[in-house]
Amino acid sequence: MVSLLENPLRIGLQQQGMSEPQIIVIFGASGDLTWRKLVPALYKLRREGRIAPETTIVGVARRDWSHDYFREQMRKGMEEIYGGVEPEELWSDFVKGLFYCSGNIDNPQSYQKLNTFLSELDRQRGTRGNRMFYLSVAPNFFPEAIKQLGTARMLDDSYKHRLVIEKPFGRDLASAKSLNAVVGKYCVEEQIYRIDHYLGKETVQNLLVFRFANTIFEPLWNRRYVDHVQITVAETVGVEDRAGYYESSGALRDMLQNHLMQLFCLTAMEAPNSMDADSIRTEKVKVLQATRLSDVHNLERSAIRGQYSSGWMKGKPVPGYREEPGVDINSTTPTYVATKFIVDNWRWQGVPFYLRTGKRMPKKVSEISIHFRDVPSRMFQSASQQINANILTMRIQPNEGISLHFDVKMPGAEFRTRSVDMDFSYGSFGIEAKSDAYDRLFLDCMMCDQTLFTRGDEVEAAWQIVTPALSVWDLPSNPSLIPKYEAGTWEPVEAELLINQDGRHWRRL
Amino acid sequence: MVSLLENPLRIGLQQQGMSEPQIIVIFGASGDLTWRKLVPALYKLRREGRIAPETTIVGVARRDWSHDYFREQMRKGMEEIYGGVEPEELWSDFVKGLFYCSGNIDNPQSYQKLNTFLSELDRQRGTRGNRMFYLSVAPNFFPEAIKQLGTARMLDDSYKHRLVIEKPFGRDLASAKSLNAVVGKYCVEEQIYRIDHYLGKETVQNLLVFRFANTIFEPLWNRRYVDHVQITVAETVGVEDRAGYYESSGALRDMLQNHLMQLFCLTAMEAPNSMDADSIRTEKVKVLQATRLSDVHNLERSAIRGQYSSGWMKGKPVPGYREEPGVDINSTTPTYVATKFIVDNWRWQGVPFYLRTGKRMPKKVSEISIHFRDVPSRMFQSASQQINANILTMRIQPNEGISLHFDVKMPGAEFRTRSVDMDFSYGSFGIEAKSDAYDRLFLDCMMCDQTLFTRGDEVEAAWQIVTPALSVWDLPSNPSLIPKYEAGTWEPVEAELLINQDGRHWRRL
Repeated sequence: MVSLLENPLRIGLQQQGMSEPQIIVIFGASGDLTWRKLVPALYKLRREGRIAPETTIVGVARRDWSHDYFREQMRKGMEEIYGGVEPEELWSDFVKGLFYCSGNIDNPQSYQKLNTFLSELDRQRGTRGNRMFYLSVAPNFFPEAIKQLGTARMLDDSYKHRLVIEKPFGRDLASAKSLNAVVGKYCVEEQIYRIDHYLGKETVQNLLVFRFANTIFEPLWNRRYVDHVQITVAETVGVEDRAGYYESSGALRDMLQNHLMQLFCLTAMEAPNSMDADSIRTEKVKVLQATRLSDVHNLERSAIRGQYSSGWMKGKPVPGYREEPGVDINSTTPTYVATKFIVDNWRWQGVPFYLRTGKRMPKKVSEISIHFRDVPSRMFQSASQQINANILTMRIQPNEGISLHFDVKMPGAEFRTRSVDMDFSYGSFGIEAKSDAYDRLFLDCMMCDQTLFTRGDEVEAAWQIVTPALSVWDLPSNPSLIPKYEAGTWEPVEAELLINQDGRHWRRL
Repeated sequence: MVSLLENPLRIGLQQQGMSEPQIIVIFGASGDLTWRKLVPALYKLRREGRIAPETTIVGVARRDWSHDYFREQMRKGMEEIYGGVEPEELWSDFVKGLFYCSGNIDNPQSYQKLNTFLSELDRQRGTRGNRMFYLSVAPNFFPEAIKQLGTARMLDDSYKHRLVIEKPFGRDLASAKSLNAVVGKYCVEEQIYRIDHYLGKETVQNLLVFRFANTIFEPLWNRRYVDHVQITVAETVGVEDRAGYYESSGALRDMLQNHLMQLFCLTAMEAPNSMDADSIRTEKVKVLQATRLSDVHNLERSAIRGQYSSGWMKGKPVPGYREEPGVDINSTTPTYVATKFIVDNWRWQGVPFYLRTGKRMPKKVSEISIHFRDVPSRMFQSASQQINANILTMRIQPNEGISLHFDVKMPGAEFRTRSVDMDFSYGSFGIEAKSDAYDRLFLDCMMCDQTLFTRGDEVEAAWQIVTPALSVWDLPSNPSLIPKYEAGTWEPVEAELLINQDGRHWRRL
């Protein structure tokens, strides 16, 4: 077996090029994700010449479909979502690499059959034993699928066999640990690709370059100069048609534990040794392990949940969360969550990180803002009569970019100051960063780049932090005690108090 | 006598309001400056209601003019320069406070006569004994005028009597010291207003606010993060009609020792205790006293002079400096100078400051650029294949503002970086800072604000720094040895070498 450290494919974020021929096995191939996202993403990669023509896709599900029926379904999907399969000749070729193999997730014989079929495809298609197993099944089937794959020796080759696990990875610390234990029994970490967050690779890279390709920010990036940090991900949409999933998830599990926590890691982590995936993930784990809710004994001082009530969006009335189709009329599921994190390390001691995310907010916005301390000696009078601290904002949405808020003199004889912004927008490059791009995730996985995937200890560390909140909020509670905010407004008043208690304010966006 | 420290008028840069009634006595009143700049500036202040209506102007010169003739000259001046004296009624009133008193600069009786006249005006006009003596005579008359004023006891009241001395204050360290000695015999420092530089008050204030009203720049403002600093003042004009003066002055005396040195001080100085004039001037002196040419034993490694030869500006041929009217055909007067300064203090040890100024450059520009060190660990590949250090630019001309040059990721899978600029322009306030504004200088002097005026020790410290260059360049030398640069191009190659020797480059503007 080739040492993983010497794997020539493992070249981290620096990668650019074409992957080796391989078979992608999609478990749960009859589900929507396969025709909506996965197969179209692979076809896109093929069209762009980013993957080898030998690349082969095998759909696995219980239904008794033929190869042709599966191919037909995929074509229909392409037509529905993308309006066609142009160019037709390429699709004809692509579809020759599309196969279907029925089986039961808990039946060892299904795996034997699959394994035999894959070996045959290796010979037919030249895929050299390279496999990516993509688990697009309900999360409760993850352990069984992995156990069966492992028992059938289909994960034995840590170099050629990869396992992709769709989100969510666990629903709390205990379930994540138990899933990690199963995975760990059959795979080494380098084989595992946990899909966990929504951040596009471009955004992750932008944040890393901004912090570590410039000398002037890092010296300021610590407790000596930073007063506090705010991370906001606000959505305007409500629960939409996802009530079934969302009712058992909520804002903390759906957004904060993964998406906001990734933004938090990229902001708070130390400089990695290099830009390879493992160096970056090591730093993320380190900072997560140093992080906790500010006051677990008084939860309302460190974590606030909220639920939107009916209100107005863009001049139209919208229902409250409990009136949404599929939602329990007494639901206590939070659609908003705000937390105050403390990072117990040398860099950040005493610098709170405030995170907030919610649905039905007035504006769709994702941003990280670094609020610097006030000047040590106040020599000037501020025009606004209030302290104008410097703020550095890293915007992810809308209009990805960087802003610097600083003070200049107002014209005139007096020494009055006024705050202004310097701004840079990535839009000036003419390219917008895409998130949720399955083509990118596939390519990274095929190229063994684990940067965007969560490592086992990372996902556990993230769950660990929010466990004190989950353990209270998961208990049955009086629905009337859930803080409310009107749809189309910012956070509930309780979340205002979370930050006001420290004499600070949420940034108005 | 009221203590100077308790003088209620001495409120420094914070001032805003109206000055006390006073008499402004202009020595050299028959010269161009009086009708071109001084009287129009005072009329402007009057029109804006910034000075008391009692304000009185007395012109002093040798010629035997009447009050009316002097008034007529001033009106002609206003008409020639500003096209009129609107509003006519205000001018009629203003002109009633305009007087003329003939006298000889070295004749004690002239001062007796003047003193009697001023006392009479005090009674007539209610100017309460407040006097500003403005020396707009040739520099070689400064000592005599001061000696006579002092002997006539006209400078005795350190609260009511002020002395304004036009530039240049000395032409080297020895002459500046000797002039300071004369001044010091009759005045305390708080009475003396040495006009020395071209920086508008707005620009001085902008620089101070930028540095000291923000927390995020000061931590970076030292040897740990700054690689070097460049200060550039480039003019497109040639010597114009100033050859008579310029031939005995040159770029070092005319621009570098005062204008660039002020920019240098504002950039390099420590934070003052407060924004009052003396606190700021104390810090300027401190940093000047710590500053020296980098290598006085090898002058060509620390100071370079140059002279423009004929060339092209905006598509038109222009003559070389030695072909300009009034210039000696064998002149060795520099029209360009570049210096490398070393600051021997804790903040700046090892950080060179490169200053350059010249006439007939391709572009009119004044700026300070802080070049930061390279990142300690280079994790990313630069698109330009060269180091992209961060640069913070404080622009004075054109378009006063601030720019920050930093690296971001280029779009695409690779981790390549590219430099971009964030920019802020004061122009967005809709007001442009004016330099060389005599109205502002008058007002500051009338309000006892010495910030824009040079303190005695400051002017000596500035001369001290450039003395090693002057003492060589003032010697007769072979004209062919003066480095040349073509009009319409940047510096002579010798000045390139001055900075290239350290592996650095002048910023291309």
